[in-house]
Formats: sequence, structure tokens, C-alpha cells
Amino acid sequence: MSLSAVAPKVVALGGGRGLHVTLTALRRMTEDVTAVVTVADDGGSSGRLRRELGLLPPGDLRKAMVALADTDGPGALWATLFQRRFGGTGALAGHAVGNLVLAGLLEELGDPVAVLREAGRLLGVHGRVLPMCTEPLEIEADVTGLDEDVDVVRRIRGQVAIATTPGRVQRIRLHGPGGPGEPPRGCAEAVEAVLGADVVLLGPGSWFTSVLPHLLVPELHDALTRTAARKVVVLNLVPQPGETAGFSPELHLDVLCAHAPTLRVDAVIADVDAVPVPDSLRRAAAALGAAAHLSPIALPGFPDRHDPVALASGIRRALDGLPAGPGEPSSTTLQEERETRGGDEPWR
Amino acid sequence: MSLSAVAPKVVALGGGRGLHVTLTALRRMTEDVTAVVTVADDGGSSGRLRRELGLLPPGDLRKAMVALADTDGPGALWATLFQRRFGGTGALAGHAVGNLVLAGLLEELGDPVAVLREAGRLLGVHGRVLPMCTEPLEIEADVTGLDEDVDVVRRIRGQVAIATTPGRVQRIRLHGPGGPGEPPRGCAEAVEAVLGADVVLLGPGSWFTSVLPHLLVPELHDALTRTAARKVVVLNLVPQPGETAGFSPELHLDVLCAHAPTLRVDAVIADVDAVPVPDSLRRAAAALGAAAHLSPIALPGFPDRHDPVALASGIRRALDGLPAGPGEPSSTTLQEERETRGGDEPWR
Repeated sequence: MSLSAVAPKVVALGGGRGLHVTLTALRRMTEDVTAVVTVADDGGSSGRLRRELGLLPPGDLRKAMVALADTDGPGALWATLFQRRFGGTGALAGHAVGNLVLAGLLEELGDPVAVLREAGRLLGVHGRVLPMCTEPLEIEADVTGLDEDVDVVRRIRGQVAIATTPGRVQRIRLHGPGGPGEPPRGCAEAVEAVLGADVVLLGPGSWFTSVLPHLLVPELHDALTRTAARKVVVLNLVPQPGETAGFSPELHLDVLCAHAPTLRVDAVIADVDAVPVPDSLRRAAAALGAAAHLSPIALPGFPDRHDPVALASGIRRALDGLPAGPGEPSSTTLQEERETRGGDEPWR
Repeated sequence: MSLSAVAPKVVALGGGRGLHVTLTALRRMTEDVTAVVTVADDGGSSGRLRRELGLLPPGDLRKAMVALADTDGPGALWATLFQRRFGGTGALAGHAVGNLVLAGLLEELGDPVAVLREAGRLLGVHGRVLPMCTEPLEIEADVTGLDEDVDVVRRIRGQVAIATTPGRVQRIRLHGPGGPGEPPRGCAEAVEAVLGADVVLLGPGSWFTSVLPHLLVPELHDALTRTAARKVVVLNLVPQPGETAGFSPELHLDVLCAHAPTLRVDAVIADVDAVPVPDSLRRAAAALGAAAHLSPIALPGFPDRHDPVALASGIRRALDGLPAGPGEPSSTTLQEERETRGGDEPWR
């Protein structure tokens, strides 16, 4: 499968800012993008709406829609409005207008897939945004390093708590709205999209709270193992405090493997400057059945931010299985560059 | 001027539920409707937004837009959503989703005319909704009957306070955002619409807080006296507790005259069952230069609610200056009917 095909069907799994980057990259490559978005957020504006109204947290869905929205034309104003947050110190302060619109639509229509279709029309979304599950979920993490005995495992519940608790996340579990013991149920349209895709992307993003949760939804996990799509994992540029502090790139893959041992992946993309020991990453990728692709995918001057343009060409190269095009340095050259010039190595 | 013209330009001045009825009637008669809406509300969802964010109160604007919105097609869903109020007992409870969208747009775009144009596109508004003024106003009323000495005049400030204080409103004043002494400044597009109209309607609605305020905006008052449009006043069906308790239909006109002594009107429309003494109303109308038209404009079985269909034909008849068409009872006949059958006479 090559992305030179007219409109390859690409599905991106994730949430938050990481998914925003992936979608911004993907819309440069194809018109047929489907975002499948985590729904376990319990913080900020989303968390307030979730607690107050018992709704699917809308924030990650909103961000994905904005990433795929019209950049000019009538949808652009609404995309800007969706991102706008009320100021002041009152009851509305901090709420994104789009979260309130999505909350209203969720109350009006009930079905989140219909809600996202209508809001997608408003914003002129190129492609489609779907929730991972149609009901809000809760993440629970096993965390070590919180006690004097660093091996004591504590259970931490809720996305915000997990992201802000120090210590080391060992494993996560997902609970459906009924609480522990009720497995989450995958959104049927999302499952279908994965099964029918040409390419599925996982990551970048908050590893434990935005990327791995998809693998813990039985129907989605099943679809990911059955789909004929090429599967690509995009790694983060820097570890995330509270979630992956001190994690090497290869440890991200090991953790992914631990949460979905039967999942096979075709390619792993990492930034060339973010991988201190390329061979370790290659070994970890190989354990998932994947080739590691080291490309310059960070924004020049911002080692912690992906460059959507560079990410798009990194994805293209990984999928084509081709060497870098003329005028572009090859991964190997860049890797050598990094090794000779040294400098910041955030994974160390 | 007859409404058999292709698309007469009709401007309706008012606010709240009364304006909603007028607009629902007018959209049956012409595509060229402009609503000019009061912006002095300080209660409910609008009042909370106004206090929290310092914005133009959006509620009356929202209701006017919904009255002119698509009834099917893509605008209809958004019109329904605009009217939907969040439930529960939290920070959002009671807020209409449309108020929040308008508030966000007001913060984003600043200019309320642009805000209403964009929201109008979303809802598929047939015609146009404009604010009376582009800045929030405050109403102040002189009220008697609050003291043992019933002639003592007390100043009451704010729409909610005026509408809920017992006693009798004698006169109102409007203050711009700078407070007393700063006259309100009319919205330029609203002034232009009045000047260019074929027909201008005033009322029905909360007399002191939704209908008369327009006459106290100097630029609007000036436009109303200068325009070549036919001017029509539509009276309420029943007195409104807190504002016009005990007011006869003719007293509504006297009060209007007291607030705008130089204003001439062409027609006054009242429900045939709501006018106990037709001659008194005719005299009060004549003092404004108008003919009184008594038509059945209440919803059958609901003497306090206007029937938009009947109101449309009442307006048509008043404008045509024609006797009732074949199959429709004439005003005189209906008036006689009421007089012979007696029954509820809410104006007494």
C-alpha cells in the first residue's frame, strides 16, 4: 500500500494534542481521515461537563474536529469559536465554547456519532471524528514509586490523577460506565473504520491516557488485530512527566506490547533526535513485528513539538518503505548527524 | 402600500415572546423581515451572561432568530439546539445553548451585527435579526403604589426588578452602559432598516420592558418619525402582572403616546375579545393618528396567546385597509359576536 493512492483510508487513534498533530499531518496526505478519540478525560472543561451533565467528555473530540476543520470558508469561524474559552472568574470561565455546543448536541441527539456528524458539517470537517466508545470511561492505573518501598503498587483512578501523580505507571485498565468489571464497549463505527482502513496510526500522545486506552477496548483491539491495514506507531518526542518520566522510546513500545501482546505493527516512527540508542528501538520495534523509521519529525527549535509537515513526510516514507526522496536527507544520514553533534537528548 | 407586493420590507420592534409571535406571523407574509430587539434584559440565562461576561444579553436575540429560522433543513437542528437549556443543578443549569453560542461569538467577533449575521446563517434565518443598540442597556422605571401613600414615585432599576415589583409603572427611562445621563445609541443597521421599511410593527410584548424601550433610543425614535413606512401597533391580549396590571388597551396607547408624543401611527391592531370598550380604543388610536382594527388574533381557547396565523391576517387586513375577505368574518361582526356572548373580558 502506498500513499500515492488517490485517497487512502487512514484511521488515527489517540487524543489531545498528539492526535491534533497527527490529524494535521494526515489531512495533507488524504481526504479520507477518521479520528478515533479517547473518552476517558475527567479534567478541565471536559471534566466539569462530564461531572455536571454525565456526558461524554467533549474536549478531545473537539480538538480532533478542529484539526480537520475548514481553514477558510464558513467552517473556519466555527472552528475558531469551538476553541475559544470563556474568560473571567465566573461559572463559565475556562469552558471552551465548542465543548458547550457538543454538550448541548449530546443532550439533544443522544448518539455521539450523530453529534459529531452534525458538528463536523458546521466546522467543514474533512474526514470524520468518532469516539472510541459512546459512553464515558474511567482509566485506572497501577503506579509504583509512591511509597518508601518503591515496589508497592498503588491504584490511581482518573485521567487527571494519573497524569499528575508522581511515580511510575506500570499498567492501565479501562472501566465502562458501570465501574470495575464492566468492560468498555467500542463504538461500532470506529470498529468498522479500523477494519476498513488502509492505514491505522497510533500515537503520538499521552501514552497511558490517550494512546494505550484504545487497545483496552475489546472490540477495537480485535479490529486492530484483524484489519488488513498497515499499522503505524508514532512515538512521542519527549517523556511526559507523571506518565512516562524517564521512559526511553523503546520502553514505550514495551509498554504497548504488555497491554496488547498479540498486536502486530508494521512501522514505528520516531524522531531522529529523540532516540539515543537506535538499535534498542529497532529491537523493540521488531518485537512488535515492525521496522523502526527514524525521521526528523520535531519542529525545528522545538524538540518537544511535532512538525506536522515533517510528520506527514515521515509517515509517507515509512509507508512507502522507500529511502528519502531527493533533496531530503536520509534517516541514516540524520541519525549520524545527531550522533556526531550530540546536544540535548531528552530520552536519556 | 399593500402586502400583496412581492416582498415588502417589514421591520418588527420588540423582544421576548411577543416578538417571537410577530415574527412567526410575518414570515408567512414576506421574506424581508428585520427584527429589532431590545437589549435591556438582566434576568435568567441572559442576565447571568451579562453579569459574568459584560455582554449584550443574548436571550431576546436568540428567540427572534429561532422565530425566523429554518423549520426543516440543516438550520432546524441548530434552532432546536439554540432553544435547548441545560438541566441539572450545576453551573450551566438553565443556560440556553444558543445564549452560550451567541456569547462566544460576541467575545470572538465583538460586533453584535456580525454575530447575528453568522448565527443567522447557521440557523437559516429568513430575514435579519438586529439589536436595538449594540451595547447592553439598563431600564429604569418610575413606579407608584409601592408605599402607603400610593402617589409616592419610586425608581426601580433593571428589567427583572421592574417586571416583578408590584405597583404601577408610570414611565421608563433607558440608560446606556455609562449609566444615567448617557443616552443609548441606536444600532446603525436597525436605524437604517426602519428608514427603509415599508411597514414597521411595534408590539405585542412586555409593554414597558420590550416595546416602549425602542422609542427611547433617540436615533430609533427619530427614524420612526421620519420613515415613510406604515406603522402598526399590535396590542397585548391581557395585562401583564408587574408591568401593566389593570391597564386597559387604550391605556397602553396613552402610555406609548406619553413616551413618544410626536410619534404618529397608522394602525392599531387589537384582539376583538380583549377590547371591552371599542370606542375608547378608537379614540386613543386616533390620538396617535391611527385607525383601530379589531380582529380575532388570539389562539382559540387561549385568550392570553396570540395566534400567528390570525395575527398575520389581522396585519394584512389592517394594511390593506380592506374589509374582511370572503369566508372571513369582518371585525365588526366579530365585535358584535363578542358583545352578545359576553364571557371573559380580561381588560376589565
